[in-house]
Amino acid sequence: MQERSIFQNISPLDHRYSLSEKDVFDAVSGWLSEEAAVRANLKAEAALVAAHLHTRGRLTEAAWRLVDEAARAVTPREVYAEEKKTRHNVRALVNALKRKMPDEFKAFVHLGATSVDILDTSLAYRMKGVCAGVVLPELRRLELCLCDFAEREAETPQAGRTHGQHAVPITLGFAVAEYVSRLGKSILEIERLSSGLRGKLAGAVGAYNALSMITADPEELERVYLAELGLEPSEHSTQLVEPEYMLRLLLEINTAFGVIANLADDLRHLQRSEIAELSEGFAGEQVGSSTMPQKRNPWNSEHVKSLWKAFMPRVVSFYMDQISEHQRDLSNSASQRFVADYVCGFCMAVSRMRGVIEGIDVDRERLEYNLGGGGSGGIQGGVMAEPAYILLAESGENEAHEIVRRITLAAESEGLSFPQALRREEAVLRRIAGKMLELGLIRDKAEASAFFENPARYSGLAACKARTIAAKYRKLMNS
Amino acid sequence: MQERSIFQNISPLDHRYSLSEKDVFDAVSGWLSEEAAVRANLKAEAALVAAHLHTRGRLTEAAWRLVDEAARAVTPREVYAEEKKTRHNVRALVNALKRKMPDEFKAFVHLGATSVDILDTSLAYRMKGVCAGVVLPELRRLELCLCDFAEREAETPQAGRTHGQHAVPITLGFAVAEYVSRLGKSILEIERLSSGLRGKLAGAVGAYNALSMITADPEELERVYLAELGLEPSEHSTQLVEPEYMLRLLLEINTAFGVIANLADDLRHLQRSEIAELSEGFAGEQVGSSTMPQKRNPWNSEHVKSLWKAFMPRVVSFYMDQISEHQRDLSNSASQRFVADYVCGFCMAVSRMRGVIEGIDVDRERLEYNLGGGGSGGIQGGVMAEPAYILLAESGENEAHEIVRRITLAAESEGLSFPQALRREEAVLRRIAGKMLELGLIRDKAEASAFFENPARYSGLAACKARTIAAKYRKLMNS
Amino acid sequence: MQERSIFQNISPLDHRYSLSEKDVFDAVSGWLSEEAAVRANLKAEAALVAAHLHTRGRLTEAAWRLVDEAARAVTPREVYAEEKKTRHNVRALVNALKRKMPDEFKAFVHLGATSVDILDTSLAYRMKGVCAGVVLPELRRLELCLCDFAEREAETPQAGRTHGQHAVPITLGFAVAEYVSRLGKSILEIERLSSGLRGKLAGAVGAYNALSMITADPEELERVYLAELGLEPSEHSTQLVEPEYMLRLLLEINTAFGVIANLADDLRHLQRSEIAELSEGFAGEQVGSSTMPQKRNPWNSEHVKSLWKAFMPRVVSFYMDQISEHQRDLSNSASQRFVADYVCGFCMAVSRMRGVIEGIDVDRERLEYNLGGGGSGGIQGGVMAEPAYILLAESGENEAHEIVRRITLAAESEGLSFPQALRREEAVLRRIAGKMLELGLIRDKAEASAFFENPARYSGLAACKARTIAAKYRKLMNS
Amino acid sequence: MQERSIFQNISPLDHRYSLSEKDVFDAVSGWLSEEAAVRANLKAEAALVAAHLHTRGRLTEAAWRLVDEAARAVTPREVYAEEKKTRHNVRALVNALKRKMPDEFKAFVHLGATSVDILDTSLAYRMKGVCAGVVLPELRRLELCLCDFAEREAETPQAGRTHGQHAVPITLGFAVAEYVSRLGKSILEIERLSSGLRGKLAGAVGAYNALSMITADPEELERVYLAELGLEPSEHSTQLVEPEYMLRLLLEINTAFGVIANLADDLRHLQRSEIAELSEGFAGEQVGSSTMPQKRNPWNSEHVKSLWKAFMPRVVSFYMDQISEHQRDLSNSASQRFVADYVCGFCMAVSRMRGVIEGIDVDRERLEYNLGGGGSGGIQGGVMAEPAYILLAESGENEAHEIVRRITLAAESEGLSFPQALRREEAVLRRIAGKMLELGLIRDKAEASAFFENPARYSGLAACKARTIAAKYRKLMNS
Repeated sequence: MQERSIFQNISPLDHRYSLSEKDVFDAVSGWLSEEAAVRANLKAEAALVAAHLHTRGRLTEAAWRLVDEAARAVTPREVYAEEKKTRHNVRALVNALKRKMPDEFKAFVHLGATSVDILDTSLAYRMKGVCAGVVLPELRRLELCLCDFAEREAETPQAGRTHGQHAVPITLGFAVAEYVSRLGKSILEIERLSSGLRGKLAGAVGAYNALSMITADPEELERVYLAELGLEPSEHSTQLVEPEYMLRLLLEINTAFGVIANLADDLRHLQRSEIAELSEGFAGEQVGSSTMPQKRNPWNSEHVKSLWKAFMPRVVSFYMDQISEHQRDLSNSASQRFVADYVCGFCMAVSRMRGVIEGIDVDRERLEYNLGGGGSGGIQGGVMAEPAYILLAESGENEAHEIVRRITLAAESEGLSFPQALRREEAVLRRIAGKMLELGLIRDKAEASAFFENPARYSGLAACKARTIAAKYRKLMNS
Repeated sequence: MQERSIFQNISPLDHRYSLSEKDVFDAVSGWLSEEAAVRANLKAEAALVAAHLHTRGRLTEAAWRLVDEAARAVTPREVYAEEKKTRHNVRALVNALKRKMPDEFKAFVHLGATSVDILDTSLAYRMKGVCAGVVLPELRRLELCLCDFAEREAETPQAGRTHGQHAVPITLGFAVAEYVSRLGKSILEIERLSSGLRGKLAGAVGAYNALSMITADPEELERVYLAELGLEPSEHSTQLVEPEYMLRLLLEINTAFGVIANLADDLRHLQRSEIAELSEGFAGEQVGSSTMPQKRNPWNSEHVKSLWKAFMPRVVSFYMDQISEHQRDLSNSASQRFVADYVCGFCMAVSRMRGVIEGIDVDRERLEYNLGGGGSGGIQGGVMAEPAYILLAESGENEAHEIVRRITLAAESEGLSFPQALRREEAVLRRIAGKMLELGLIRDKAEASAFFENPARYSGLAACKARTIAAKYRKLMNS
Repeated sequence: MQERSIFQNISPLDHRYSLSEKDVFDAVSGWLSEEAAVRANLKAEAALVAAHLHTRGRLTEAAWRLVDEAARAVTPREVYAEEKKTRHNVRALVNALKRKMPDEFKAFVHLGATSVDILDTSLAYRMKGVCAGVVLPELRRLELCLCDFAEREAETPQAGRTHGQHAVPITLGFAVAEYVSRLGKSILEIERLSSGLRGKLAGAVGAYNALSMITADPEELERVYLAELGLEPSEHSTQLVEPEYMLRLLLEINTAFGVIANLADDLRHLQRSEIAELSEGFAGEQVGSSTMPQKRNPWNSEHVKSLWKAFMPRVVSFYMDQISEHQRDLSNSASQRFVADYVCGFCMAVSRMRGVIEGIDVDRERLEYNLGGGGSGGIQGGVMAEPAYILLAESGENEAHEIVRRITLAAESEGLSFPQALRREEAVLRRIAGKMLELGLIRDKAEASAFFENPARYSGLAACKARTIAAKYRKLMNS
Repeated sequence: MQERSIFQNISPLDHRYSLSEKDVFDAVSGWLSEEAAVRANLKAEAALVAAHLHTRGRLTEAAWRLVDEAARAVTPREVYAEEKKTRHNVRALVNALKRKMPDEFKAFVHLGATSVDILDTSLAYRMKGVCAGVVLPELRRLELCLCDFAEREAETPQAGRTHGQHAVPITLGFAVAEYVSRLGKSILEIERLSSGLRGKLAGAVGAYNALSMITADPEELERVYLAELGLEPSEHSTQLVEPEYMLRLLLEINTAFGVIANLADDLRHLQRSEIAELSEGFAGEQVGSSTMPQKRNPWNSEHVKSLWKAFMPRVVSFYMDQISEHQRDLSNSASQRFVADYVCGFCMAVSRMRGVIEGIDVDRERLEYNLGGGGSGGIQGGVMAEPAYILLAESGENEAHEIVRRITLAAESEGLSFPQALRREEAVLRRIAGKMLELGLIRDKAEASAFFENPARYSGLAACKARTIAAKYRKLMNS
């Protein structure tokens, strides 16, 4: 009865993307599906019984086995059947569990706990688990792909672009290193924040009212309970764990999402017909368009960007869920369930992006062609206007920027390349050449002209930064 | 293979809420699931073949039957199998359809269409359908419940509250009429906007390039195609239908969502222990808390509010999907799929809210007790300070507000009710009584005191508005 | 004392942009600054006094002059000084007004009104005014510029682009007509919604409690009051006007904002070095970069996009302000004040965009060069693959798409243009040519080859749509 | 000319709130106004000249003084006048600065820098400054007020509330300690993140192209430059500093905002007429409503909540500003300027909240009255149902929850208080009393009844937690 064709599901995560990203879906489902939630709730209930037994010195290995087996014996289906009666999901879980629990332990089931002692703890446990088991591995794999990419293309010249306009040269690896650096730091933060998630066993309003009656040190009982699940207690609790432990993790995941969306945008644009420096791999039988047979679209990068558009704004819900009246209202309950969607959507974007990077084709000829200004509007070789200005200024010329700007205007109006126009300005070029010689950039004044015709020589520390950053984060990911 | 336990799904819509709101889920799934999408795409492809036949004068009834049968014979499973090869979902659909199509019609399959001519049209068709078939019926049922509620309680006195403070009296029906009025107008807008959704058959970039080659009037072909699906064409198309037709509908649904969330908040607060004027129905075996046996929580109202928190911010994605570069980029594709989640979440909130209104218990004693100021902090009978000020002012006293304000301060410091404190100010009361007599509010000066002790007499047009608005919208909903 | 250097202001609207968009700032400030707000509040208070006089048959022309003069005599400074005492802004306004009001009218000042009867009414009045006086005129000017642009370039061939890839040909005017159509409809909606804003005079909780004491038909008094300000009453009021009248207007403004942001993105990308079809005007002394003398950036288009990023998400605040507990809580008060910022930011974006369109340079050579595939990656002439497929299919070939796809693959691997590769496939070309002849697309089979070499011939209804849409909206804007 | 009446400003921050929160406005304006921005940009330019001199061994104290004086001599007005010509704000700044700079240093002005090397660095400097100088001091003052409040009321009994329903007892100080704990951690994070903001001097595309020509170790020059401003370099730069340093700070500020908004909501509701446990201070002449003389509204708490509604959603803009194409597009430029508004709005909310806490009145009688259930709907003494259930369960009764639930139902239907109803169930009470004796909770079985009549005895660790947390954060804030 609870089987259903996935094509009848509503969420794209549960139909289309559960097929196209099957591995990720299955892995996330193992932590964040309803089945995983019920199982983790039972695990938490078992941990609570164990903690009570521990406190009373009755937690033998045999006892633990019985408790654990009882918890494992309950199925989500049973819990749902019971809930029809109780109309309360945790009371239903407790009733179902009690039925399986040996009589001697029945009274300890849920004893002193409020529902949220189980639910918030279970959620922290599952979110910690999905981060360690899916989110972080997926992210590290992507990061390592980016490290490879950055190193492989560390020396490949590319036009640096600002405002969509050619600016000054970089290397492709340097451009990729941006994402290694930004994503890498985000991964480290997600590690830190997910491992710092908290649970609670502080009762209905967080003041340990019930537990204070039956145990001398309720905070110790809380610690024992949570340690069983690998967690520590919230510093203060109401009925809820302080919401900011989870919120900060979600914000950081959204931060990583933004980095990946930015990468997707860069990849999309570098695949434009007129730029064509990169392309997503394309299978032989693959069809780009249902009507235009020549099309090869950067559809995977577009897909990643689109997922970001779907999921990024949900951060507003996360912030709204910070607010709960007094010792809690329930208005974070349904909304918080959709955190599962969010994490799943994010993991799918990470995985898809890794596929793109793994299969990316680099067209080095186009990179060189574009850097040289071939096919572009604007002044050919204009990317070398900056070094002319800098060297002229360094030679002591206060109006250097304006002088070079006028040379670019002349080049434009006469249809010359920038190096050609510069060559005509003999006095300027001589002064620049002199400075270059002095700075050790050339060995002979005559070389100056050649320098301005070869933009790849003006890429600063690009290659070096690409390698340093890739090496640093490869090491961090592997540790 | 494509069957799966719903408990392994990620989205709460597809597991927990597909059970708790089964009717709504099934109805929405019939329009917005992946199966429904594939079927609607096939229906659109069939309409296109028919339009081609029509234009060529070949559309007999027999021909239509063959085309229609071919389209109905294709299953989502087949389409998905084919997509593994093409990696393009519409090309896969076309291939699968061609296989079932009689040879004589094969060449017309997808002829002149780009994928989006099918997809955007199909989406408009399904959204129009889900509005007419689920969204609007659910909304109208809720609205009628609210009309009943407003009329039933049109005369029931209640304390009007601003800033959470008692202000001046209203009736409960008047408070409900607010929602009748606001939701009613939103329903009318959703009707208008959903019936105005548009499709397209303008080809790859919207300029009818392909169709212009093979038909003299491609815009006529487009109209024939769309008419088959009950739609009209987008005024201008790129590869996409103009996004604003859909956007405005989604914005209006979000507007209705806000109205319902506001109602949910009011209901939550009117169920507070200290107010307790209303309560959600409670079944005999129902459990309010897993640890506090006395609890009866307004959890359905809280659930509705929580759904609003989960879904309202998604409007940001809708706005971001307005932007598509040039004749389209694909970055609205994945994000737009989640519109299905949004609509489903909304319908579930509407349905849940109706359940709350249908089962709501009104405690008229508490309403009276609260209006009288019983159990409240502040001055008893303070809700009658305004008429004292107004009548005094009307009598020509320029400092009326200040005079009455001082009477309230005196009442407070001496622990009197406002009517008591007013009675002590004989000159003031006399002047007020005179004015009341003059205005025909009382027949005898001595009645003035009694008036101030009976707040229910000071509820203005509350009952009348409640009835007028309820009657108006009941009629509109039934027409 | 209340003078301050604008450079000490916090909001960019109030310093930098109040200079760079001075005309827009001044116009918006005339409606939405604090001074404008106070003056409109006074105007509303005067209208209330007049309504009371009218109802009592005492509203002579002389009386109105005295009331009006009293309201005009109060300054914001006086109101603020009074508020230090009352700590209530409307009570302060009332006190200040009473001081200027002739004694005979003093008692009517604010009589029967709650603060919001003034404030919500005044806001509706000002928003209606700023729309009629600034928002709509600015929008219409932009729309007319776009109409001109669309018509001027109706025939200019351009590569249609989907996924950033060349798709099939369009004209530049057709691309612009997209925005004429989308923005045009939004302008009509803003007209409709702004003229439908509502005010209220229904008292503290909306039930006309106070007014019911002193007038037989309080709804008539409300209509008289509002008519003075050109408004109609909210269908139902709490302390507040129903929030959706304003909300829908703001949502539609945000919709127009999205259309303009989309246009900005298109313009940005068409100015990329590698595309360079358009450029923003550039003054002789203007500097593109502080370090790269050759740079000419599409900074105005980027600015418009950036404003959209700053303002679009504020729609979430507008939706949150729908919710007010019971007959109102104050939590929409501060947030609603920032609607002024929103409207101002929007108007600045509209005005800036108009400047861009007015000064835009079109490089027809680049447009032709790009359409021909010059400088692009991918197959030259690939934009003509679609008509080959369509014509082949139309000739009865079921595998037309696949056949043409293979021709594009061959062209690619051998470095041929698509027309060259097509020419080699004699049987295919012959079949296509035959079909073209039959369809009247050519007069002679030999012409077929030439057709495929001239993409401008394959632009469908592009020019026609450009002109039709431009003509339609020019007429609507001028009416 | 650049003086203007503040009442003509658009943003409420720059008119109304610049008066009502004058101290905060002035302090924030000192860091984030346009004047502060220009001055910080000049400071950065001066630091760059100094760094060049340092690298060349020419940075004497006299030289620094000359450079510094030149930078201080430039006014925002001069820069704006120059920008009219250049249409580029940093080039204008550079030109204005060069005019004041001694000839010998002129060539070093802006040498090797791109505009953003100045602007992003200056923004980091100012944001770090405003955090250290305004945001954190304001937050610490609020936190210390909350510590005082929590300690002062550590023992004051209060009804714990979940779902707006009485749950089990807490103390008021415990409720406040929630905010001490949550806000305290956020303050520590803001300290960490603001002190970690980064600048850059990596040139037009981040690869140190220009600087590599003129200095052997451009990264060393960058460090010298930034050290002058108390900053460190971005790990990788494009034209921009990596956006996440700033983003994380803004997200954390928004997190703190959420905590404060939650506190505001709690305070609002605890001031409801029916609850009335707290009230905001009220001045003698203060007016609560322009028409209801008795009103005393929690308007400051409402104001704080409203600011949150206005500012929280702007986090979406912050996330959108993560995305910049290639080595940067300009679309984060205008949007980023509004960070100033955000920070100012936040500081105003913090300051207002502190005022509320400082002036809050606690009504201990009402607290006791409410805890006892006086004036509430529902069962009197129902908050003691939980300990009955717990003790009964602890005594070994498996059906304890159900038994106590039935007692509450009986109490309700017969109009008894829970202790009364419990007393009737002698067997149950006896068993509970026995357990209590065993646990040392009472010294005599007869005491059990008294226990259930005194909810204050069932507040767990509430008082203890209140004190511990207050002490911890007081110490942290003072260190």
